[in-house]
Amino acid sequence: MTQLGEFALIARYFTRGCAERQGVGDDCALIDVDSRTLAVTTDMLLEGVHFLPDADPEALGHKALAVNLSDLAAAGARPRCFLLGIAMAQADEQWLAAFSRGLFALAEQHACALVGGDTSRSLPSDRGRTGPVWINIVAIGEVDRACCRGRSGARPGDDIWVSGRLGEAALALAVRRGKVDIPSPAREQCFRRMDRPEPRVALGLALCGLASAAIDLSDGLVGDLGHVLERSGVGAVVDWPQVPRADVFARLDVALQQQLVLAGGDDYELLFTARPADRQAIGALSCDAVPLTRIGRIDAAAGLRILDGSGAPIKATLHAFDHFAAEA
Amino acid sequence: MTQLGEFALIARYFTRGCAERQGVGDDCALIDVDSRTLAVTTDMLLEGVHFLPDADPEALGHKALAVNLSDLAAAGARPRCFLLGIAMAQADEQWLAAFSRGLFALAEQHACALVGGDTSRSLPSDRGRTGPVWINIVAIGEVDRACCRGRSGARPGDDIWVSGRLGEAALALAVRRGKVDIPSPAREQCFRRMDRPEPRVALGLALCGLASAAIDLSDGLVGDLGHVLERSGVGAVVDWPQVPRADVFARLDVALQQQLVLAGGDDYELLFTARPADRQAIGALSCDAVPLTRIGRIDAAAGLRILDGSGAPIKATLHAFDHFAAEA
Repeated sequence: MTQLGEFALIARYFTRGCAERQGVGDDCALIDVDSRTLAVTTDMLLEGVHFLPDADPEALGHKALAVNLSDLAAAGARPRCFLLGIAMAQADEQWLAAFSRGLFALAEQHACALVGGDTSRSLPSDRGRTGPVWINIVAIGEVDRACCRGRSGARPGDDIWVSGRLGEAALALAVRRGKVDIPSPAREQCFRRMDRPEPRVALGLALCGLASAAIDLSDGLVGDLGHVLERSGVGAVVDWPQVPRADVFARLDVALQQQLVLAGGDDYELLFTARPADRQAIGALSCDAVPLTRIGRIDAAAGLRILDGSGAPIKATLHAFDHFAAEA
Repeated sequence: MTQLGEFALIARYFTRGCAERQGVGDDCALIDVDSRTLAVTTDMLLEGVHFLPDADPEALGHKALAVNLSDLAAAGARPRCFLLGIAMAQADEQWLAAFSRGLFALAEQHACALVGGDTSRSLPSDRGRTGPVWINIVAIGEVDRACCRGRSGARPGDDIWVSGRLGEAALALAVRRGKVDIPSPAREQCFRRMDRPEPRVALGLALCGLASAAIDLSDGLVGDLGHVLERSGVGAVVDWPQVPRADVFARLDVALQQQLVLAGGDDYELLFTARPADRQAIGALSCDAVPLTRIGRIDAAAGLRILDGSGAPIKATLHAFDHFAAEA
């Protein structure tokens, strides 16, 4: 038995010639219907893998939808509706009430209606009273055909941009696991970033015609940028000092900073590439709540080079989160 | 903590005013896009709940897609593409190769392309070397807007029809559990029905303009017809002698026959209602491989009455399969 990486696994068994314009491996499938294009994405959240058994169900309801809306944001799609699959050992009313509160609050914020789904019993376990909870959401959005972008459009010379700040969700996880401690209020801010990610839907729409490629940062900067580089057949240079991060990171040693900021998952910010000619237009979209920062550039030479403040390459052993690879 | 039934649970927590024309509780969500309508459905298959740990992975690949295409068939939709979510503790290549063989063989038969999805690690267990396998498929089809039908269109006076024969999948499960024994080749035929259901896609399309309501029989005749009656605000009479079943059922006592044929799930035949004026047109769609049989009629009085050969009501304590109710 061989341990395949998650993406190798997809590629090997589940990639076929696609009838649609975008297929397996992108954030969304794009489906042309008449003159319009639908973006469809699906994401699983599994207890014990993506969240802990004692996770706050209201935050979980928010996050389950947020990670799917984040995929729509990367594709530049306007959310339209979603389907929910949920399996649990017992129908715990209190848990469900809180979960649905979190879910629908975010859904209403984005005018995204629940239109169907599936429910099932899961096998009981002793891990929690609701048993292992398994959540699957399918989100469907509409994208302007002129704006369709995926992971394959990055070109040499393009700037690399990210929204927001990176690494706080990974820092929260490290705090929750007792590996590091940070003071309030940075601590609460990091937990909020982990538990209640805000999908960058408005930004995704605003980047129509500006972004040449886009991806949402779910697996971490190194891994997700790696997908863009691979699909686009290009390389990149990233300037570590430019990568936006909260002040609290300055308290950590540099190796841990780099691990969390460059390879930490769960940020759900957008990474995108764009022509230098569009710097001003993109800068105009930057705001205090969601700043946009230029962190590097695409070049023709394959590979990702991350440079420190002196221009020396960071010898990084940073790995993206991969479910099927060895323990994350 | 209250044990809610599966459908009560959906209704209570996950039903909201729907922006789309059909919503939670129907086989498919119907989404209007320009002049066309997409049907979207999602179904989960969980190890230990929907299939056994030692299930043949090739058959499982077939069935995982088949149950979703069956939902499209009920909606009268032509399959277009699908997304696959799969979680397992370890990426077992042999298992995946067989699973994908079964999956793609059916997908190709229906020209339904895989366009995206999600993979994840699941928590390891000692139940099998692949760990608990969780599968989620999203199937997307196109439906002629003039043909859109759901569960709510049945009208008093309509005939009730079913395709194929009912109960064989439930009989196979009873055999596999050692509760009953039947001879070959009926035995193999029943296993085939359980493991390799054939979604009635062509029939679903052919019923365009004929069926007033339709549903696929996943939970059993009583339960699924019950959904149609509830959503349509009508009642029904079903003639037990007319309900189509294999000859092998004559070997079983009548109570077991009725339990398996009327309440056994996993048949994935279509149940539909239609005006008596359309009997000839519907009869013309009947064929040896997939016969169509008239089993009763819709009436205005609420409730489902099942009559035996003498016209006496069958005092049935038949229950549809409900994941969240007490042990199925």
